[in-house]
Amino acid sequence: MTTSGKPVLYSYFRSSCSWRVRIALALKGVDYEIIPINLTKDGGQQFSEEFQTLNPMKQVPALKIDGIIIGQSLAIIEYLEETRPTPRLLPQDPKKRASVRMISDLIAAGIQPLQNLSVLKQVGEQNQLAWAQKAITSGFNALEQILQSTAGKYCVGDEVSMADLCLVPQVANAERFKVDLTPYATISHINKTLLALEAFQVSHPCRQPDTPVELRA
Amino acid sequence: MTTSGKPVLYSYFRSSCSWRVRIALALKGVDYEIIPINLTKDGGQQFSEEFQTLNPMKQVPALKIDGIIIGQSLAIIEYLEETRPTPRLLPQDPKKRASVRMISDLIAAGIQPLQNLSVLKQVGEQNQLAWAQKAITSGFNALEQILQSTAGKYCVGDEVSMADLCLVPQVANAERFKVDLTPYATISHINKTLLALEAFQVSHPCRQPDTPVELRA
Repeated sequence: MTTSGKPVLYSYFRSSCSWRVRIALALKGVDYEIIPINLTKDGGQQFSEEFQTLNPMKQVPALKIDGIIIGQSLAIIEYLEETRPTPRLLPQDPKKRASVRMISDLIAAGIQPLQNLSVLKQVGEQNQLAWAQKAITSGFNALEQILQSTAGKYCVGDEVSMADLCLVPQVANAERFKVDLTPYATISHINKTLLALEAFQVSHPCRQPDTPVELRA
Repeated sequence: MTTSGKPVLYSYFRSSCSWRVRIALALKGVDYEIIPINLTKDGGQQFSEEFQTLNPMKQVPALKIDGIIIGQSLAIIEYLEETRPTPRLLPQDPKKRASVRMISDLIAAGIQPLQNLSVLKQVGEQNQLAWAQKAITSGFNALEQILQSTAGKYCVGDEVSMADLCLVPQVANAERFKVDLTPYATISHINKTLLALEAFQVSHPCRQPDTPVELRA
C-alpha cells in the first residue's frame, strides 16, 4: 500500500477495464500510483484476502481516491468527471451524454463481461476463442451501426468522451481474440485516431509497470 | 408505433433491465406508453428488422423520448435523471453517487449480462441453471459485503437510488433461478423494503400489459 496522498489505481496491464480508467486519469492529468494486481499469477492476485477487502468483486480496476475506494470502471470515470471536470469526458448536452453513456454501457455491460477472463475459464479452453469472437462481433455489429449517427472524429462528435475510453481497449481485445475488423470501418477509423493521442499511449497495456518484457513497446 | 408525444418504452415484462427503467419512470411520474417486445415469441421479436433499426443491440429496454431513442437501461436512467431531476435517483454527494454507480454497474455489468437469455441459450439447457446461479451468487457475495458499508434503509443511505432500481429486478432473477438467498440478509431486507413502494409494484413483471395471464398478480 502507499502512504502518500496520491490516488492509487489497482490495475492489470492487460485488463481492458483498467485501461479505460488509466486513459481517464491521463486525460485529466491526475498524478497517481499503480499497484499491479496480476490476474493470472498465484492463481489470481485479485483473490487475495487483502484485495478482496478493497474490492469484494475481486476485479480490477479499483481506485483509492479522496479517502474512498471505488470499483467498476465507469463508476470511477463518472466520479473523476464530477470531481475533476476538466477536460470533460461527457458532453454538455444531455442527449449527447445519453449517446456517450449508451455506447459506454454497450461495451461495458454488453460486450466486455462476456469475454472476460473468468467467463472464458468457465467456457473451457476449446470454446474460448469462438465464444469471445461471438460476443465481440455481435456487439460491434450494433456499435458500428450506432456510430454512423453519433460519430464525428470520435465516438460522439469531435470531442473525446467516456465512450472512446471504452472503445479503444475493446478493440484491443478484439485483436487479441483475432476478430476480423474489416466490417467495422468506423470503429477501426476512430480507434486509429484515438491511438494517436498521448493519453491513450501512456496508458497502453504495452507501457505499464507490470507489462512483461516481451510485450513492451 | 405511436403518434402521440408521450415517451415510448420498448419493454418485456420479465426483462430485469426493462424493469429498472419502468421503476425510474414510475418514481419520476413520467407518463409513457409501453410497446411490448416479446423476447421468446416468433424466435424473438427483438430480432425483427423494425426493432433492430430502433436498437441495433436487439435488446430491451429502449426508450423513445424527447425525439431520441436511448438503449441501455443505465444510460436511460441517467438521461431521465438529468432531464427530470425530481425525485433524484442519484445523491448529491459525489462519493455517494460513486457508491450508487458502483453498485448499479456491479449488477448491470457484473451479474445480469452473464445470466441473460442469449447467454443462457449459448450455455445449453443442461448447464443453464448452474451457470446463472454461479453468476448471481458470486455477484451477490460481493454486493452483500459492499452494502454493509453503504446501506441505510436502501442500498445507499435512506433514499431510493439507481442502485435500488438494479437490486430489486436482480433479486427477482435470483429467485427465478432458485438461488438460495439465506446468506444475503442485507440484500433480502432491502429488497423487501423496496417492494413495498408503489413505484416498484406498478412496474413489477406481474403487472405489465404483456404479462401472461397465468403470471399476473
